[in-house]
Amino acid sequence: MTLVITLLTDFGISDSYVAEMKAVLISAIPTVQLVDVSHDVSPGDIHAAQYLLGRSWRPFPAGTVHLVVVDPGVGTGRRALAVERDSHFFVGPDNGVLTPILDRATVVALPPDPGASRTFHGRDIFAPAAARLAQGTPVTSLGLPIVHPLRITIPEPSQNGKTVAGVVIYVDRFGTLVTNIPAAWARPSQKVHVGGVVVPLLQTFGDVATGALVAFSGSDRTIEIAVRDGSAAERLKGKVGTQVRVAEV
Amino acid sequence: MTLVITLLTDFGISDSYVAEMKAVLISAIPTVQLVDVSHDVSPGDIHAAQYLLGRSWRPFPAGTVHLVVVDPGVGTGRRALAVERDSHFFVGPDNGVLTPILDRATVVALPPDPGASRTFHGRDIFAPAAARLAQGTPVTSLGLPIVHPLRITIPEPSQNGKTVAGVVIYVDRFGTLVTNIPAAWARPSQKVHVGGVVVPLLQTFGDVATGALVAFSGSDRTIEIAVRDGSAAERLKGKVGTQVRVAEV
Amino acid sequence: MTLVITLLTDFGISDSYVAEMKAVLISAIPTVQLVDVSHDVSPGDIHAAQYLLGRSWRPFPAGTVHLVVVDPGVGTGRRALAVERDSHFFVGPDNGVLTPILDRATVVALPPDPGASRTFHGRDIFAPAAARLAQGTPVTSLGLPIVHPLRITIPEPSQNGKTVAGVVIYVDRFGTLVTNIPAAWARPSQKVHVGGVVVPLLQTFGDVATGALVAFSGSDRTIEIAVRDGSAAERLKGKVGTQVRVAEV
Repeated sequence: MTLVITLLTDFGISDSYVAEMKAVLISAIPTVQLVDVSHDVSPGDIHAAQYLLGRSWRPFPAGTVHLVVVDPGVGTGRRALAVERDSHFFVGPDNGVLTPILDRATVVALPPDPGASRTFHGRDIFAPAAARLAQGTPVTSLGLPIVHPLRITIPEPSQNGKTVAGVVIYVDRFGTLVTNIPAAWARPSQKVHVGGVVVPLLQTFGDVATGALVAFSGSDRTIEIAVRDGSAAERLKGKVGTQVRVAEV
Repeated sequence: MTLVITLLTDFGISDSYVAEMKAVLISAIPTVQLVDVSHDVSPGDIHAAQYLLGRSWRPFPAGTVHLVVVDPGVGTGRRALAVERDSHFFVGPDNGVLTPILDRATVVALPPDPGASRTFHGRDIFAPAAARLAQGTPVTSLGLPIVHPLRITIPEPSQNGKTVAGVVIYVDRFGTLVTNIPAAWARPSQKVHVGGVVVPLLQTFGDVATGALVAFSGSDRTIEIAVRDGSAAERLKGKVGTQVRVAEV
Repeated sequence: MTLVITLLTDFGISDSYVAEMKAVLISAIPTVQLVDVSHDVSPGDIHAAQYLLGRSWRPFPAGTVHLVVVDPGVGTGRRALAVERDSHFFVGPDNGVLTPILDRATVVALPPDPGASRTFHGRDIFAPAAARLAQGTPVTSLGLPIVHPLRITIPEPSQNGKTVAGVVIYVDRFGTLVTNIPAAWARPSQKVHVGGVVVPLLQTFGDVATGALVAFSGSDRTIEIAVRDGSAAERLKGKVGTQVRVAEV
C-alpha cells in the first residue's frame, strides 16, 4: 500500500529545511508519496495555515498523514501533538494550527526528545512521528492523551434577519477574498457589501466583464469576492479581517 | 507500470490548490509519479504556459498525462479538452493553452459536470479526467471529438533574403530572452539585433566576458539572448514581443 | 528498492528547466523518488548551494544521488563531476559547489558529450549521469578519476584564547544569521557580538521575548543569531560575510 504524507509549513522553498524533513520521511518509508500543501505560509501565520489545512486534508486518501509545521514557539514549552480524525492523521505543534481538525479527534502529546535540536522540531520531532503514524503505529502509542489542545477559532459569521455578517479569512494568489460566510446562507437575490462597495452575487468570474467585481460560492463553499482577470484584494484594499456583509439591498 | 502526470498551472505555490488537485490524482492512483512543470505562470498568461508546455512535454515517457490549468475563463462557456498526441495525453481548457500539441492530435470535449464547482475545474474536472487517462481510459471515451479547438499561435519568424525577423516569446528566470527564431536559420557569421544593440552570435555564456551580451542556440534550439552572469531582460529592456533581427551586418 | 535522487539548482520554479531534468530521470527510472532540496538559490550563488548541500545530504538513505546544478560556467571548459562519498553519490559542475563532500571522496570527470546543448547541462549531462549512478553504475565507470577538483572553502572560524571569531555563511528565509562557528566552541557564559550589538547565547527563540535578539546552537550545530518572531538579518543588517565574535564579555 502506498503511504501518503502531506507537508504544510512556513519554511519557504529557498532553504533546505523541507528537504531535511523529507529525508527523515524517506529514510523511514522509501516509497512514501509526499505532497507539498504549501511551504509559503508567512512565517508564523497560524491563521493562514489553519485555513489551508482545513480545506485541503479531506480529499486525500484515508490513512494520509498531514505534517503541519508552522511553529513560532519551537523550543518553548508548547506541546507537540499527534492527532487521529476520521482515519486521517495529523502531527504539529499545540499552538492552534490544528484547530480545524480537532473536533471528534483523538489527541496525544508527543513526549519531549532530549536528543532533538531546540529549533527544528519539524525534522527532529514531527517528521519522525509522522513516519511512525504512516507505518501504522497507533496514535495512542505515540504519547499520552490530552483533552484541551489549544484552539484558535476562526471568527464565526452571524445572521441578523436576512443579513449575514462575516469577515475575510484568507486572500489567495489571485487576490480573491475568501470569507467565512457559508454560500448556503446567501440567496441569489442578495448583494455582497465590502469596503463600501456593493458586489453582485453570481456564479463565477465569467458572469461579469473583465475588470469587474463579482462574488460567488467559492471552491470551499464559502462566499468569495473576486475581480475577473484582476485582484479584489488590490481593488478593495481587502485583507484578512476585512468585514463583509451579505444583504438584500 | 508507473504512471506519470505532470502539472502546469498559474495557481502559485502559496495556496493549497495544487495539493487539492494532487489529492484527486493520488486518491485515484496512489503510486502515481507527479511532476510539477510550473505553478508560477503569471495569472492567466496563456502564452507563457504554451511555451513551457511546448518545450517540456516530449522528454517524458510515452503514456504521460500533462495536466495544464491556466484557465482565466473557468466557469464560462469555454470547453474543457482531453487530447492524445504521439502517445502523450493532455487535459486543459479550450483557450489556446494546448496549441503546441494540437497538430495531428485526437481532441475531445469533456462533458460539463453539474456537480463541479464553478471556479475550480482543475480539481473538479481536469484532475479526474487526467486520472482516467493515466489509468488507461481511451481519450475518445472521455468526450465527443471536436475539430476546431481554439488555437493561439505564437508569431512566426520571417525570412527576407539573409535576414531573419522574429520576436521574444519568453523571458526566463535568468533574464534570458528566448526568441521564436530557429537556431538552424541563423549562420555563425551573422549578428543579432535587438533594442538597437548588436549582439554577437556565439555558442554559450562562456564565450564572452562576465557582464557581456551574447546570443546562442538555446536549449530549445531557438536563438536566445543573454548576459553572462547577468540579465539580458534588464540590460535591453527586453520582454515578450520585443523585436529581434538576425542579419549579416 | 526505491532509488532516491535529490535536486539542488538555481533554476527557479517559474520555468520548466527542473521538470525537463526530472523527465530525463523518470524516463530512466519511472519509480524514482525525487526530492527538491532547493531551486531558489540566487543565480550562480555557489556559496549558498554549498551550504545547502553540506547540511542536507547526510540524512538521506545510503545510495541517494544528489544532483547539484548551480553552474554559471555551463558550456565553458569547466569539468563535469561525478562523486562517491560515504555511499552517497553526487553530480555537478567542477566549480566548487561540491566542496563540502569532496574529502575522502572518489571523484571522476564526466566526458564531454558532443550531442549536449551548450547551455543546459543539467538536462543533457548531469541528469543522465545521475540516473546511471542511481541505477548502480559505478562512479568509476562514468569517467576518469581526477585528483584536484576545484574547492571553494568556506572561511574557517578562529580561536584566540576564549574568543572565537567567525562570519555569517548563510541567511535563511526567517532572516536568521547562520555562522561558521561550531556551537561546541562556545560556552553558555559567553555572548555573541555582531554588528556592534551583544546578543545573549541561549537555547532557542522562546528564551527571549517577542522581538528580542537571541543566539543559539542551530539545527546544523553552528551558532545562529535570530530575532524571535522577526528577522535578525533586517535588525542587524547582517548578511553573508558579516563578522561575528563569541566572547566572555
